[in-house]
Amino acid sequence: MEFVMTDLSLPNANQRRKTETLYFQLAGELAQAIQSGVLQLGEKLPSIRKLSAQRQVSLSTVMEAYRELEDRGLIEARPQSGFYVQKHRNGFSAPELTQPPQQARQVVVDPMWLPATLARLHAIKIDFGFAILAPALFPNQQLQRLLAQVTRHSPELIADYGRPAGDVELRRQIARRALNWGGQFEAEEILITQGAIEALNLCLRAVTQPGDVVAIESPAYFGLLQILESFQLKALEIPTHPQTGISIEALELATRSGEVKACVLLPNFSNPLGSLMPDENKKRLVELLAERHIPLIEDDLYGEFYYKGDRPRPAKAFDKEGNVMLISSFTKTVAPGFRIGWVVAGRHHQKVEQLKFINTFSNAMPLQRTIAKFLESGGYDHHLRRLRRACFDQVMLAVAAIERFFPSDTRLHVPQGGYVFWIELNAVVDTLLLLQHALREGISFTPGPLFSPSHSYRNCLRICCNEPWGARHDHAIERLGELVQQQISEATTTR
Amino acid sequence: MEFVMTDLSLPNANQRRKTETLYFQLAGELAQAIQSGVLQLGEKLPSIRKLSAQRQVSLSTVMEAYRELEDRGLIEARPQSGFYVQKHRNGFSAPELTQPPQQARQVVVDPMWLPATLARLHAIKIDFGFAILAPALFPNQQLQRLLAQVTRHSPELIADYGRPAGDVELRRQIARRALNWGGQFEAEEILITQGAIEALNLCLRAVTQPGDVVAIESPAYFGLLQILESFQLKALEIPTHPQTGISIEALELATRSGEVKACVLLPNFSNPLGSLMPDENKKRLVELLAERHIPLIEDDLYGEFYYKGDRPRPAKAFDKEGNVMLISSFTKTVAPGFRIGWVVAGRHHQKVEQLKFINTFSNAMPLQRTIAKFLESGGYDHHLRRLRRACFDQVMLAVAAIERFFPSDTRLHVPQGGYVFWIELNAVVDTLLLLQHALREGISFTPGPLFSPSHSYRNCLRICCNEPWGARHDHAIERLGELVQQQISEATTTR
Repeated sequence: MEFVMTDLSLPNANQRRKTETLYFQLAGELAQAIQSGVLQLGEKLPSIRKLSAQRQVSLSTVMEAYRELEDRGLIEARPQSGFYVQKHRNGFSAPELTQPPQQARQVVVDPMWLPATLARLHAIKIDFGFAILAPALFPNQQLQRLLAQVTRHSPELIADYGRPAGDVELRRQIARRALNWGGQFEAEEILITQGAIEALNLCLRAVTQPGDVVAIESPAYFGLLQILESFQLKALEIPTHPQTGISIEALELATRSGEVKACVLLPNFSNPLGSLMPDENKKRLVELLAERHIPLIEDDLYGEFYYKGDRPRPAKAFDKEGNVMLISSFTKTVAPGFRIGWVVAGRHHQKVEQLKFINTFSNAMPLQRTIAKFLESGGYDHHLRRLRRACFDQVMLAVAAIERFFPSDTRLHVPQGGYVFWIELNAVVDTLLLLQHALREGISFTPGPLFSPSHSYRNCLRICCNEPWGARHDHAIERLGELVQQQISEATTTR
Repeated sequence: MEFVMTDLSLPNANQRRKTETLYFQLAGELAQAIQSGVLQLGEKLPSIRKLSAQRQVSLSTVMEAYRELEDRGLIEARPQSGFYVQKHRNGFSAPELTQPPQQARQVVVDPMWLPATLARLHAIKIDFGFAILAPALFPNQQLQRLLAQVTRHSPELIADYGRPAGDVELRRQIARRALNWGGQFEAEEILITQGAIEALNLCLRAVTQPGDVVAIESPAYFGLLQILESFQLKALEIPTHPQTGISIEALELATRSGEVKACVLLPNFSNPLGSLMPDENKKRLVELLAERHIPLIEDDLYGEFYYKGDRPRPAKAFDKEGNVMLISSFTKTVAPGFRIGWVVAGRHHQKVEQLKFINTFSNAMPLQRTIAKFLESGGYDHHLRRLRRACFDQVMLAVAAIERFFPSDTRLHVPQGGYVFWIELNAVVDTLLLLQHALREGISFTPGPLFSPSHSYRNCLRICCNEPWGARHDHAIERLGELVQQQISEATTTR
């Protein structure tokens, strides 16, 4: 699939972007070759001239890519000689397909979890726990100006209830952007919601009844588990691969009995696994669920956070029957403080619109219009490129630190997008206990059991990379690694 | 209770406001005396000098009050003679206590209602159907400037997820304002929600299970009925008086069996009845429900819309045990386009906060902060006085038009606050049919059956007075009156 540029508003913007995309792609490929061990420690990279000829890109593109890798500490320039791989891939394996229990179960979330979490937030110095990107990564000044412009020009928007479906200008812009991955929607098929989380609530309310079974990834986002609990829905955890997402085979088996009434998935850069489902699997997934009349609620919150190449298509791209309810948001990508999400609910559109009407009625009009203007201006693509690069850097440096400071039996899969990833530790490690110790030193992360209704994954944790990486993050990871090692040593001694 | 002025920020503001309040009170009292027939058509009003002495107010206060009544068409000035009552009170009686069915029932709302309503909105020329005040009634320019100021000063708010409980500055301001009616809350007891409607959802989710019975006013706001339906809650309609609200006796009987799990009421200027529950009833209500451990969800959306005297206290003022969940909003009063509501959930606070976390996570931070600044600046009280007066005028002129153009067996209760009221027509009238005919002429209102799960009130309707009243509104009411008369005549002929 071609990377489609939607914004032609700036002269030569297309050309400039193409160059930027090229060098960034190249840097990404090389970084992955190093991470994966294709390029070994100390190995010499092809000369700039040679790679330029091989890849048919300009010399400056290769130069930029090499400089990028140098900045990230992956390669070093040796004067009069060339570029060499500086980073050692220590050989962490990826975790395997998860093996959750095969029975659906009532979700029970510790009611003290939220209060306890909020209470300790102020004491946290390094937060790997919440997936909340640093404010400095967002185009705040630009949005500030647009918002002032929009409300000065149309002050009556401040007194406008809006409609449950949302601002038609924003819906048009979303429809326009969906063309990038081949999505063809009318503005009328899109509904604006208060963040993706409201969309998730509305979709579940639209297609399930209390007591119903919902199939989910395992591990799964803890917010989803809390929503399931609040609606008295049962969760059926499906085995999920950290690289390719949910097992279609396992899902096929699990949906035979007719017990499963809906399926909630994040095929693109799942939270917490960071997995990316291949297109072939997405296609099979959509066909399977359509055949069995099980609605697929697809949360594509992280779809725009790909590191290289083209934007991965959502499963919705393969939906011919309106069975997929595609959810996304501008909260993660543009303006966390605006709370604007959206959903294309397919054949459940009308029901979801009614639920929006009674759940929050509508989103704030001035903010919707401001995002619409931002998309229209073309500022979005430019910002996204920067944001993706920042996330890539943050994740790669976090992975590098983990590889350096964590025990060698640690398992992790380096994601291809997003800003969270999943770590599996030695089976004796208890990450709930680990968190208690870490919090005492002002470091937080999210322990594995929070991501599973069966409270599995006690030896796993999720790391969120929210801000530009620095020495203090390295130190925090080093300290975490020591705490992990300590638990392992103690367990070995006890035996 | 004293009317407490919270804003002392402007020099002499207190004094000026006291005068404004006085003349407005006086005008309100006189208007009611005319409406209620205490002052008859053609009767001469006391001279300005005499009333000034009687009421111990300045001459100019009386002058202003008389001018106000003249503007509203209630009195006329006859040169060299004085002021005379111009308006004839034609003697419409108020409707009686409602008599809904005594069984709780599953709520079923026509799924086509919303799409049909939205589809026809564009064709409506005069909308008495939705309670949506005209944009011109709101302080849009002032908020526009505050919002620009807030985001220029703190652009990082645009990237701030906020907390589920909301902006602490706004919560402090809300706590401060509650002192006006004797409410003593900490900022920490208040939760910000996406309009009052989200609060209603969260409160119901917090205290009920699917299948539970919820006691409601009859008639009740249709949005509430849709929420009950979506959560599979059963509604028990309680007899309600158009003047004093729900019958405490009936509620006492209905809650004996233990079947009722929650109660949702609007004691202050209920929608659609416009009723105002006396303090004595509020006290009994709160005691009764506390004794029976039935949470009271109190929607005080219209509490600030009193026409005269002091702000009516919410039932929450009598709550000693945290059993009342008080809901209100700035959507109706300040900025419909900001979607900011709030709830003081008493002993259910923690549960409601958790549900906010998973329903929409938080409200937009820049908008919350802007409302906080608006409250802090003192602009709110000034604006409210203007808004209350506008609503009073609109409702009084609407009532006057109904009295002039509707058949004499029409019943209505003139509300003491808010901007909606309820009309009971001759028993043969079918307001669903009436609406069809009215819509053809571009006039809309809300038919009675929408306000009842038992689809009662077929001969009733709700009128919303959303904008400054003019000749076109008079014409619309005249036309409605003709359509009503036509139905009555046809029914009589058929017999």
